[in-house]
Amino acid sequence: MTKAEGGKRINLSATDRVAVVAGSGRLPVNVADSLAQAGHPPFVVLLEGEADPGTSLEGYAGKTIAIEQFASLLPILKRQRVTHVVLAGGVSRRPMWRAIRPSLALLRILPRAVSALARGDDGLLRILVNTFEDYGIKVVGAHQIVPDLLAVEGRMGANAPQAGDWADLNAGLEAARTIGALDVGQAAVAVGGRAIALEGIEGTDLLLDRVRELRNNGRIAGRKRGVLVKCAKPNQELRADLPTIGPATVDAAHAAGLAGIGVEAGRSLVLDYGEVIERADKLGLFVIGLSGEGDKE
Amino acid sequence: MTKAEGGKRINLSATDRVAVVAGSGRLPVNVADSLAQAGHPPFVVLLEGEADPGTSLEGYAGKTIAIEQFASLLPILKRQRVTHVVLAGGVSRRPMWRAIRPSLALLRILPRAVSALARGDDGLLRILVNTFEDYGIKVVGAHQIVPDLLAVEGRMGANAPQAGDWADLNAGLEAARTIGALDVGQAAVAVGGRAIALEGIEGTDLLLDRVRELRNNGRIAGRKRGVLVKCAKPNQELRADLPTIGPATVDAAHAAGLAGIGVEAGRSLVLDYGEVIERADKLGLFVIGLSGEGDKE
Repeated sequence: MTKAEGGKRINLSATDRVAVVAGSGRLPVNVADSLAQAGHPPFVVLLEGEADPGTSLEGYAGKTIAIEQFASLLPILKRQRVTHVVLAGGVSRRPMWRAIRPSLALLRILPRAVSALARGDDGLLRILVNTFEDYGIKVVGAHQIVPDLLAVEGRMGANAPQAGDWADLNAGLEAARTIGALDVGQAAVAVGGRAIALEGIEGTDLLLDRVRELRNNGRIAGRKRGVLVKCAKPNQELRADLPTIGPATVDAAHAAGLAGIGVEAGRSLVLDYGEVIERADKLGLFVIGLSGEGDKE
Repeated sequence: MTKAEGGKRINLSATDRVAVVAGSGRLPVNVADSLAQAGHPPFVVLLEGEADPGTSLEGYAGKTIAIEQFASLLPILKRQRVTHVVLAGGVSRRPMWRAIRPSLALLRILPRAVSALARGDDGLLRILVNTFEDYGIKVVGAHQIVPDLLAVEGRMGANAPQAGDWADLNAGLEAARTIGALDVGQAAVAVGGRAIALEGIEGTDLLLDRVRELRNNGRIAGRKRGVLVKCAKPNQELRADLPTIGPATVDAAHAAGLAGIGVEAGRSLVLDYGEVIERADKLGLFVIGLSGEGDKE
């Protein structure tokens, strides 16, 4: 699979049916609602303990499963005549392997899943993709079905970076790219022209909380502004886990005293776009799509 | 200045006098006490709000200054006939530039200090080194005066890494080196063969707190053990800010559920060595000095 294959837009036919496997956050909600609006109401698989309660996801045909029952998904999706599946949203918990009941489907993927786990997250995603495709179900990226979610290049909203913010954007981008190459995280915060905080598995919300605390404790004294930068890993599996921002990211960046947010254009998602721009404009933050390195679709 | 020049052992003569500029933590205490035991009682400059209260540092001849009064240090040290200065310990706060009173010494270093700040921490350290040396005072690394502080290669203490810990040590070392090259941090935590948390300006204590919380929240479920790795930045100014561990690091690593600690041999400091080993042995953690890449002295 090449990166290009992971990024092409999918034109759904009348007989196609899309399943959204929903983890936490706004992404699965955005995807499901956009599909419904386009005349393709999705089949929604809520991951227990991960999918946020009380969203519109619960109004669609679907099923709730524990992450340990993942292998049972395949026969369910086949019965529902699902042709495409989107893996969307966060999964904060690792499977409890002891809770997994053996099944034929599981026994089939287990050897590959184990070797994938040993290679880290991206490896596991690729195995899932291959396993679905063995069953004739295409795994597609959220942005392939709802391309409006992709960050565009340039300024989004009313505020633009000041001249001095570019040193932060460049330092943040360099740091985010570097840790992405290590398959560790996708985000960095830069202040005063240098990266000061790096995302690990804790995620962007906790990264921004940390920056807020450092700032409140005077650990970034004399350095105002600063930026959050998110970008895809160099070998990102584009069909899952694209870097994402949403309204909560804008609020958290503001609380951390940052001046704006940079995201990799064409390889990052902006959720609830209208609300992101409204809040950023109101709070005085800029949101900007940064050009990648030729991998944009 | 080459790295080698930053690393040579200094043999003090009877007329030499060493000043210890003391930030937070155990390093300045270790350095001052070792100097006194060797017959060279130091002149101690306590940085206000940084140096820990109630340590043996307060028993030596010395002076307390605010970090903003740094430029006044030079005439003070000259009057005390100081020949060597060691910058030791943490400085968590950035100077409040508005609180700095102009002085001749300051006006002299200001242009260089400003350009150094723009280049990040290591640049500022180098400027301080050069400014002291303009006044005929040598800036030396703690390890040059108290070489016993340097981490040795191989196992320290009773516990050794298990075969499976080497994947974590290697992943942690790769990550720590990579972020060091960005001049961001010096430490990484790896669990299950991959880096999961990276140090920014928050420091190692908060890095380990974060790992403890991630573990307690089930975010590293199914992955036991793991390691903390610290190593010097590739272009580290060896006379200040060498990566350091001490008894508190061992406690925090244990609280985070880690199996051990790896430090770069020859370019990292182990403070309160006896206590580090005693606690690590008792808690079942290994402490190991990892070989560098030919930069060891």
